[in-house]
Amino acid sequence: MLVALLLPFLCLLSPAGAGKLLVIPMEGSHWLSMRKVLVELSKRGHEIVVVAPDSTLLIDSSDFYKTKTYPVPFKKEDMEEHIHSTAARCFSQEPFLVRFWKVLGDYRKSGAMFQASCKSLLYNQELMKYIGDSHFDVIFTDPVSPCGQIIALHFSIPSVFFLRMVPCAIDVHAAQSPDPPSYIPRMFSVYTDHMTFSERVKNFLIALSESFSCSIAYAPFEELASEFLQKPVTMTELLSHGSVWLKRIDFVFEYPMPVMPSMVFIGGIHCGQKKPLSQEFEAMVNASGEHGVVVFSLGSMVSEIPMKKAMEIAEALGTVPQTVLWRYTGKAPPNLPKNVKLVKWLPQNDLLAHPKTRAFITHGGSHGVYEGICNAVPMVLMPLFGDQMDNAKRVESRGAGLTLNILEMTSNDISTALKAVINDKKYKENIQRLSDLHLDRPIHPLDLAVHWVEFVMRHKGAPHLRPAAHDLNWVQYHSLDVIAFLAAVVLLAFFISFKCCLCCCRRCFCKKGRTRKAAKAKSH
Amino acid sequence: MLVALLLPFLCLLSPAGAGKLLVIPMEGSHWLSMRKVLVELSKRGHEIVVVAPDSTLLIDSSDFYKTKTYPVPFKKEDMEEHIHSTAARCFSQEPFLVRFWKVLGDYRKSGAMFQASCKSLLYNQELMKYIGDSHFDVIFTDPVSPCGQIIALHFSIPSVFFLRMVPCAIDVHAAQSPDPPSYIPRMFSVYTDHMTFSERVKNFLIALSESFSCSIAYAPFEELASEFLQKPVTMTELLSHGSVWLKRIDFVFEYPMPVMPSMVFIGGIHCGQKKPLSQEFEAMVNASGEHGVVVFSLGSMVSEIPMKKAMEIAEALGTVPQTVLWRYTGKAPPNLPKNVKLVKWLPQNDLLAHPKTRAFITHGGSHGVYEGICNAVPMVLMPLFGDQMDNAKRVESRGAGLTLNILEMTSNDISTALKAVINDKKYKENIQRLSDLHLDRPIHPLDLAVHWVEFVMRHKGAPHLRPAAHDLNWVQYHSLDVIAFLAAVVLLAFFISFKCCLCCCRRCFCKKGRTRKAAKAKSH
Repeated sequence: MLVALLLPFLCLLSPAGAGKLLVIPMEGSHWLSMRKVLVELSKRGHEIVVVAPDSTLLIDSSDFYKTKTYPVPFKKEDMEEHIHSTAARCFSQEPFLVRFWKVLGDYRKSGAMFQASCKSLLYNQELMKYIGDSHFDVIFTDPVSPCGQIIALHFSIPSVFFLRMVPCAIDVHAAQSPDPPSYIPRMFSVYTDHMTFSERVKNFLIALSESFSCSIAYAPFEELASEFLQKPVTMTELLSHGSVWLKRIDFVFEYPMPVMPSMVFIGGIHCGQKKPLSQEFEAMVNASGEHGVVVFSLGSMVSEIPMKKAMEIAEALGTVPQTVLWRYTGKAPPNLPKNVKLVKWLPQNDLLAHPKTRAFITHGGSHGVYEGICNAVPMVLMPLFGDQMDNAKRVESRGAGLTLNILEMTSNDISTALKAVINDKKYKENIQRLSDLHLDRPIHPLDLAVHWVEFVMRHKGAPHLRPAAHDLNWVQYHSLDVIAFLAAVVLLAFFISFKCCLCCCRRCFCKKGRTRKAAKAKSH
Repeated sequence: MLVALLLPFLCLLSPAGAGKLLVIPMEGSHWLSMRKVLVELSKRGHEIVVVAPDSTLLIDSSDFYKTKTYPVPFKKEDMEEHIHSTAARCFSQEPFLVRFWKVLGDYRKSGAMFQASCKSLLYNQELMKYIGDSHFDVIFTDPVSPCGQIIALHFSIPSVFFLRMVPCAIDVHAAQSPDPPSYIPRMFSVYTDHMTFSERVKNFLIALSESFSCSIAYAPFEELASEFLQKPVTMTELLSHGSVWLKRIDFVFEYPMPVMPSMVFIGGIHCGQKKPLSQEFEAMVNASGEHGVVVFSLGSMVSEIPMKKAMEIAEALGTVPQTVLWRYTGKAPPNLPKNVKLVKWLPQNDLLAHPKTRAFITHGGSHGVYEGICNAVPMVLMPLFGDQMDNAKRVESRGAGLTLNILEMTSNDISTALKAVINDKKYKENIQRLSDLHLDRPIHPLDLAVHWVEFVMRHKGAPHLRPAAHDLNWVQYHSLDVIAFLAAVVLLAFFISFKCCLCCCRRCFCKKGRTRKAAKAKSH
């Protein structure tokens, strides 16, 4: 059996041959976990070229890959400013409709920036010529922006997607995965997989509205793709050509739902490789004594919190005996208690992995939540935007944390929630159970991701995983034409039987009538 | 990265602790591949108890597991006789309806035998007391007979299923996996995943009929389970409680379709561990010269073929220059050519793995087909019964073999097909492509199976993989109540709007009418 035991090893250590990858990534935390896969692929001898806009925020150069940038019609500062204003909107106390309108504007602006970036790439003749001449074996891309897939289709290069999800479940539809709204809560619904009747009604309506709202949101991309590929394409059609979907999800955190064979689950890929803490952080953690520490970060997008809110938070943090390490770049609140240490940056995963860490206050971004699960740290969640409300609900529904409404929470709410997750054993037990399940896997997600990228390179795609559903239209897929045909046959059969019966009856009665008349006539 | 690379290894080499497995297997080839998993689990220190009827055909004793038998109301000879008469029916030239009726009788008899065996186990007080007292961590069972799952529910032991499929897609429904009949061909349909309209109609009708036909076929089991568990249960309900489904399928061979997170795919688990050939077979293969050999086996169930058919086959085999190794226990046909060697048994996988093997003549049992794919040997398929017709269609649709109708094939047909798969390069190229895809996996299926059995033992099940769909009824799952409610709301809104309009119009017209009347009255 040693051979069988060695197989995963042999398979990973001896790639069939080094290949060439073109990477078209997304910004932010998406890039950070994708980068881990690139480093691993590079170590295995593959040549990697990352293509990114020149105004990129996080996408860096490295010895592991070559980075090629292209000019875009906005500056890095514009992007930073846009991100900060979007984040600041989360703390706005303006009326709901005003906020909703402004948030919609923010999303539109984000979309316009991504589309402009994509257009700049597609019409950058030099870069496109380089891509065409380079004969890449695979395009490794984040499908939240379909730019990579447009290029994949243009040059007929197989693609591997790296994502958690695409808004409006476009990823699910593009992979032909069924997603009954009866038990799969939609994004932004903030429901669990067990819904009441009224929740199911709302979830159904959200599912219905998704196709409209997303077709509006992605319309500029669809226009651009149709123009560039010279044939009309929708976002779903574009993404339906992906060979393999590397999905950063795990069913410890996500609700179990139907999936497709082309989907590979690599949730928690970025977590688990713990490095020792720097002297500065090690000292802070050790100084916390028996009470340990609380890690607090609202993510890299939030640089500042309104002072009133910051003071409320600071007041609450002072009520626990733990040392709180708060990642915060804004102005320090004047009432900052002694047990709270403000830091400009913190090694989140390494701190969460420390045995002295008692709780994690997070905005509920999926990366942070997976780090919390991976390291079994109970959470207090303060979701801000996007999928964070849904993530918070998932953690809370599993009894592994408590959620606070960032706009409405008081100092007392924060204090109560924090004390609960630290002192009530059930939160630690639940997150430990989730963590045990999450980490008990036959192969590390990073190795799985590397395998499937190489698989697509070796076999020039994965056509054997492509379901025949792609060749059916909506009516055919749901067998509506078959049902209509069978209904017509049944109705016709009934109609003919009815007519026959009627005819028989008539003949019978006519005969009787005639016989009776004849009899009457005779008797007269 | 070495840690990440080592993880699968560490995970496999250091189980959390040895556990106790109760195994309730199925007969035949099902048992042979299940046995491989048991041997591996035993090597990892687990205590394994196999429970089987005393009239078992293949389930043996071993150093790797303890076997406990129970008396059943039929003998081993009865079972052998039943299998042989079922197999012989495949060659019967009787009219279709007569054959169909007899085959139905055979299936009924098989069902009755399994049910009788199950009843004997469930009401064997001594054995049931032993199971109850032994505190097993998991029940590892083949769900084609739900006996293991009945015991699992009775003693609240988590269960792991080991199967390729359950008739009528009961496994698919029990796991809550969607299976649209528009592109998923039903068992016995002999369709591919690309169907014409008329094929889709037939496939839809087969899917419709399955629920009726299988509820009749499994009715005795459902009755037995309901009586034993003292609550009414269906076969689907019974199997819905399985923790993990280890499915012996691979999408190189099966058509891609929606699956569930609780399904783990271990197709080809029994294949790939090649042992050197015995002296006898090595000599035969070496003597074949440059032309190589053809491996021919119709499986262990077929012991004899009608002499006329055997002579036709023998005649055809004489037309190829290859040496044919034919596994056949019946009377040798008098026209047996020199290049055909009859053997009572042959090491199928090891022979297929030999580089001199040119083709494989098989009945299309899934085990044999996976061995053919695994070793990249093109096939001539002579399906006999069960899923073999569908398997043959799958191989043929991928251009990796040719199918013959065992009743209608002539000597010439066999010869032509055999020569084609040997000499036409496309068959070898296609099977080689399938083989390359099949063997390119991140972890060996045997290690995957071992991991998931141990996972269920470690975590006392896998509740995080259980979809919430289990808690919905058919109407709720398909959102029919939600659609009806929304339709009612829309209709009511229309009705009220219509009534309001009508009311307004009436008032308007009445007023005008009255005004006009008043005006007329004045003018008079």
